Amino acid sequence: MHEGEYYDIIRLNQSSPSLLNKFSTTNPIFICVISHTETSEIPGITIAGENTDLVKYTSAADSEFLYYGHCKCINNIPITPDGKPTPAIITRTALQLTDIPFLIVDAGTKIKPFIPYVSFDLEPGKNIKFGKAVDINHVIKAFNYGVILGKQLAKSNDLVVIGESIPGGTTTALGVLIALGVDAKFKLSSSLPINPHSLKNRIVTEGMKKAEVYFGGLKDDPFKAISLFGDPMIPSVAGLADGVISSGGRVMLAGGTQMSTVVVILKSFQRSLDNICIGTTSYIAGDQSSDLVDLVKSISKNVPIFAVDLHMNESSKSGLRAFAKGFVKEGVGAGGISITSILKSKGRINGTFLLKAIEREYDIAIEK
Amino acid sequence: MHEGEYYDIIRLNQSSPSLLNKFSTTNPIFICVISHTETSEIPGITIAGENTDLVKYTSAADSEFLYYGHCKCINNIPITPDGKPTPAIITRTALQLTDIPFLIVDAGTKIKPFIPYVSFDLEPGKNIKFGKAVDINHVIKAFNYGVILGKQLAKSNDLVVIGESIPGGTTTALGVLIALGVDAKFKLSSSLPINPHSLKNRIVTEGMKKAEVYFGGLKDDPFKAISLFGDPMIPSVAGLADGVISSGGRVMLAGGTQMSTVVVILKSFQRSLDNICIGTTSYIAGDQSSDLVDLVKSISKNVPIFAVDLHMNESSKSGLRAFAKGFVKEGVGAGGISITSILKSKGRINGTFLLKAIEREYDIAIEK
Repeated sequence: MHEGEYYDIIRLNQSSPSLLNKFSTTNPIFICVISHTETSEIPGITIAGENTDLVKYTSAADSEFLYYGHCKCINNIPITPDGKPTPAIITRTALQLTDIPFLIVDAGTKIKPFIPYVSFDLEPGKNIKFGKAVDINHVIKAFNYGVILGKQLAKSNDLVVIGESIPGGTTTALGVLIALGVDAKFKLSSSLPINPHSLKNRIVTEGMKKAEVYFGGLKDDPFKAISLFGDPMIPSVAGLADGVISSGGRVMLAGGTQMSTVVVILKSFQRSLDNICIGTTSYIAGDQSSDLVDLVKSISKNVPIFAVDLHMNESSKSGLRAFAKGFVKEGVGAGGISITSILKSKGRINGTFLLKAIEREYDIAIEK
Repeated sequence: MHEGEYYDIIRLNQSSPSLLNKFSTTNPIFICVISHTETSEIPGITIAGENTDLVKYTSAADSEFLYYGHCKCINNIPITPDGKPTPAIITRTALQLTDIPFLIVDAGTKIKPFIPYVSFDLEPGKNIKFGKAVDINHVIKAFNYGVILGKQLAKSNDLVVIGESIPGGTTTALGVLIALGVDAKFKLSSSLPINPHSLKNRIVTEGMKKAEVYFGGLKDDPFKAISLFGDPMIPSVAGLADGVISSGGRVMLAGGTQMSTVVVILKSFQRSLDNICIGTTSYIAGDQSSDLVDLVKSISKNVPIFAVDLHMNESSKSGLRAFAKGFVKEGVGAGGISITSILKSKGRINGTFLLKAIEREYDIAIEK
């Protein structure tokens, strides 16, 4: 499968074959927004971390891994209970292969990474089942700081790729989408192969009951929706994207179903979505337990979604084959940065080439 | 006076007229490293702040001013007791005129600015008269984080311009230079028109006595010299510069005599200095109470120094004319960014053009 001259990039929702060329890039930058929501501490909600106690280290450890190839705040790379690695292993490989610069934005982590990071000066988000997630002033600050940084990035870089690492983030995304009137139930993906939809729905319903908000009740007030049911990552990424497109730049939202929250927020601000696309992995695209395409289509028909096929099913490593079996699937911008590295290389590299490099990175990381 | 086709850029120390062209740029970025040393709280050492109590706000306020055109952590722009404005007014004007992106690095401020900034996770520096300024682990961290960030910047930008805002920074620079065996006494400039050389010398002498270190005693250990007599800005800027040049990029150190510490540190690490220049104002260049050219020459003959003539003496504003009378003179990368904006504009703008824009910015800032 291929899109134009680029192999292993699949176009999921658009008819015009020229759309990928619109996001061609010679000088991209990757921004990974790391954050925390106490919602992730609910047992069964995520496997992003070896156990519930370690979940708070995941996003810091991911960002250390991107810079160093190993972690500093924990001993091993973030890994699932049975040894499946963080998607940061894909991200690091793709960044290195085509020399893409990147910065980490700390948007309210509990554990700070041992790297230079851009601070948005935010607190971690609370458990949304209590109907109070992020101080409204912090929502506004996150968005405004995102805009400031996004404007600076658009001056240097022809494509700003924005990813995230926040365990539990699909549950907070569900809360925000429902409050904004997007029929998102059963459409958000999960790091688990068996998507805990009923648990997520229950948490969101509980939070909405506490806050006395119903489906679509905050359609015109996305900041309030984030404040009640979201996390600090969402307004930070939305602000970054807004800063870039308001400066005439182009944005790739590198992530799965969570990124639909950013699309709906920008749409509610009447922004043109012409210069935004979503880049993800084929494991999100092919997930039977979620529906990224339908979710985004219900918000906007104009945002193209691209997915990369990394041929993980063909890997010699069982930890990587697991991605093709529905574990982890995406995160830390893995899919979007893989697409960006294919675009930046003008198709010189493809999914198979990336897989070989990811396997080498995997061997090094596991040995450490 | 002009250098090649660029008016108002003066070449101070080199014979080859092609040297400025080497630093021509289409896609520069400005990094301003803000920091604090308790040395600045010694009365009479600086006028960077309305009074000794307010000095700790200066660098945070400077960086807010760059983004917003006004400050948030204090009510007015950083200003001297009798109304002379921060050099950030020059920097902001030059950045805006030619749309140069910039990021702030917090390297140990006491007051954090209300902006998104890159955190190097450092403590403010102590008063060097006690012979113990910065924890050695923080010196190393500052340098390493600088290298990490510098490498990323060099991937996107063809010139990385690095400035600083740290009140009292010429005194800490003096301490480091002397410990490294650079005959720097009476050569460092001051924000005051009457350079308090004897006070600075006394503080440094006191600190060296406490630490039992003599002239040149730490020639081979620049990190220890910074740890005893420096501030957190110096290793941060040195690391940034090292990260950029080690990636094949080019650096302009935007500042006055303080930047000589960075040159001596990189030289002691046997780095090639071919891709480094210093950019400053003509008010530093013409300062009778200091000697930038001689200071840098005693370290390396290969680092070109450029100065911009902003024609401040011709300004209609007394607060700006003061720059030409020896007040403030430089800071927040003012000279280097003015030069960069002239270079980026391919000479379309010059010092006179900049002055008119600075005067407009001054009017707006004073009104607020």
